[in-house]
Amino acid sequence: MITVIKIAIIGFGVIGRGVAEVLLEKKEEIQNRIGEYSIVAVCEKDGVAYNPDGLGWEVLKMKGGDFSEGSTVDIIETAEFDVAIEVTPTDIKKGEPGLTHISECLEKGSHVITSNKGPLVVAYSKLQELAERNEVQLMFEATVGGGMPLIKLVRNDLAGNEIDSIRGILNGTCNYILSRMESEKLTYNQVLTEAKELGIAEADPTYDVEGIDSAAKVVIIANALLNMDITYDDVEIEGITAITPEAFEVAMERDYTIRLIGEVSRETGSLKVSPRLISTHHPLAVTGTLNAVQIRTDLAKDIVVIGRGAGQKETSSAIISDLIEIFRK
Amino acid sequence: MITVIKIAIIGFGVIGRGVAEVLLEKKEEIQNRIGEYSIVAVCEKDGVAYNPDGLGWEVLKMKGGDFSEGSTVDIIETAEFDVAIEVTPTDIKKGEPGLTHISECLEKGSHVITSNKGPLVVAYSKLQELAERNEVQLMFEATVGGGMPLIKLVRNDLAGNEIDSIRGILNGTCNYILSRMESEKLTYNQVLTEAKELGIAEADPTYDVEGIDSAAKVVIIANALLNMDITYDDVEIEGITAITPEAFEVAMERDYTIRLIGEVSRETGSLKVSPRLISTHHPLAVTGTLNAVQIRTDLAKDIVVIGRGAGQKETSSAIISDLIEIFRK
Repeated sequence: MITVIKIAIIGFGVIGRGVAEVLLEKKEEIQNRIGEYSIVAVCEKDGVAYNPDGLGWEVLKMKGGDFSEGSTVDIIETAEFDVAIEVTPTDIKKGEPGLTHISECLEKGSHVITSNKGPLVVAYSKLQELAERNEVQLMFEATVGGGMPLIKLVRNDLAGNEIDSIRGILNGTCNYILSRMESEKLTYNQVLTEAKELGIAEADPTYDVEGIDSAAKVVIIANALLNMDITYDDVEIEGITAITPEAFEVAMERDYTIRLIGEVSRETGSLKVSPRLISTHHPLAVTGTLNAVQIRTDLAKDIVVIGRGAGQKETSSAIISDLIEIFRK
Repeated sequence: MITVIKIAIIGFGVIGRGVAEVLLEKKEEIQNRIGEYSIVAVCEKDGVAYNPDGLGWEVLKMKGGDFSEGSTVDIIETAEFDVAIEVTPTDIKKGEPGLTHISECLEKGSHVITSNKGPLVVAYSKLQELAERNEVQLMFEATVGGGMPLIKLVRNDLAGNEIDSIRGILNGTCNYILSRMESEKLTYNQVLTEAKELGIAEADPTYDVEGIDSAAKVVIIANALLNMDITYDDVEIEGITAITPEAFEVAMERDYTIRLIGEVSRETGSLKVSPRLISTHHPLAVTGTLNAVQIRTDLAKDIVVIGRGAGQKETSSAIISDLIEIFRK
């Protein structure tokens, strides 16, 4: 029996700090759902903080202050914790360093909650087997759609349904660019410049605009929600860099718009990310940085869910809901 | 320890038969999630069928055949079951007969899953207390939005969030009428006649078009998801019968449409059902018999979910997901 749930946070950037903040600020409400908890370890590239009795507010709020030298892997091997929140930067080719972190945590019998797509894209079925063998859970609501519920929605709220297909807008940066091209009749490069200025696009936007991020999410959706066993290379990918204002003009004349759609379909066997025509009145025709997904099922038919695909608080929402799912009384 | 989950179905109309069918047809998949189960009792107004070893396919498929005289209340008192699926017709004034059924099932220590709004509108907090006292669960995903996930989505997938407001389209009949008035420029009465012919509106459509059904759902949302303690009389209600084609014309000129919106807001204290102007590009501007709800939260911000608010399979989806939620391994 766990008396106090011991939490390790691995990765202490925007997401890690955001989660720590919510765990501190909403302690009473969350403890009502899962019982007492305490953050015992925080790890980042440059150092670690560990206290088996729980780290104080100061350490968690002020990154750095009380961090001592030490490696994340050492903490994973030696510290005692019940659940690791793995939120290091993602690498979808090798999955590292998250893959090592998650594997070792599961191996030692700790639950894992992650926002890190890479490890799941590279080794989903291996990690699931590891979790099952060690009788712990691997949760990853935050990997797809940020604050938008999708993983638990399909697995639990639509439990009993067969999932025929899932398709939608899985990348807020692309959706921002496309919806600005639509409304302002600007070129791709004009909007990209604007998006970089606003911090919506990275200095090197390749990962988003070439459809790589969306494809990683397609892999997770296919494996986790449609019980497939696919890899990144199985996904046909086309990004948004070649879309012209003229293409929008033609689409808009017929009351359509263009959106980057990721799609997994059992019926058609389709696994792809590509720009698609969407009726402006279709629920997937969302604007700005929103994400939107349509789930086609046998009993409930079509379900659409729309929400924010990124952001510190939004991602924390997904991670906290996973934590409550694992431990709720 | 439960070895075989014993299920009683109370009410054997369209919904009850639909649930029985799914429980039979998807037995293998559902048993993978919750373990072995068997339908031991089916009750309806005119008779009951009970077999502690499980009722056969024939009884469940062919209503009537093997039903013997007997009362539902007798079955509830004497039969052994772990969960009752209460799907009798709803009466939102008195809540009966569902209120008696649900109370007695909870009292005897059986979980209850219901699609019946009446008992929850009349006595939500009393029923929840009864469930807690008897250490069983009262589940009611099917009461709001049919196949559209909402109750578990808010409670579990958005766990950790504070819910500021929930508003949306909670009645498919009204939405059908309004979206046809919009697209075909017909009068309310013309579309109502069409809707009756198609079986979308009842011969007496009062319950839907006067906003009563939506208001019942507002009461359930407020009490179950925003921890309020309100009754039907607290909801300000205006239906759709007075909406004219001219009103649509004025709205459409400004790229708006009219929808019947149910709203619970902690911020504004608003508890109401009324026709509202909605931008045609807003995700809530769904057409046909769809339901759509926007949930405003502190962490995940705005989440929208869209789905089918009624239908035999759709409602079964909600009930089966509740069953899996209670018993999942």
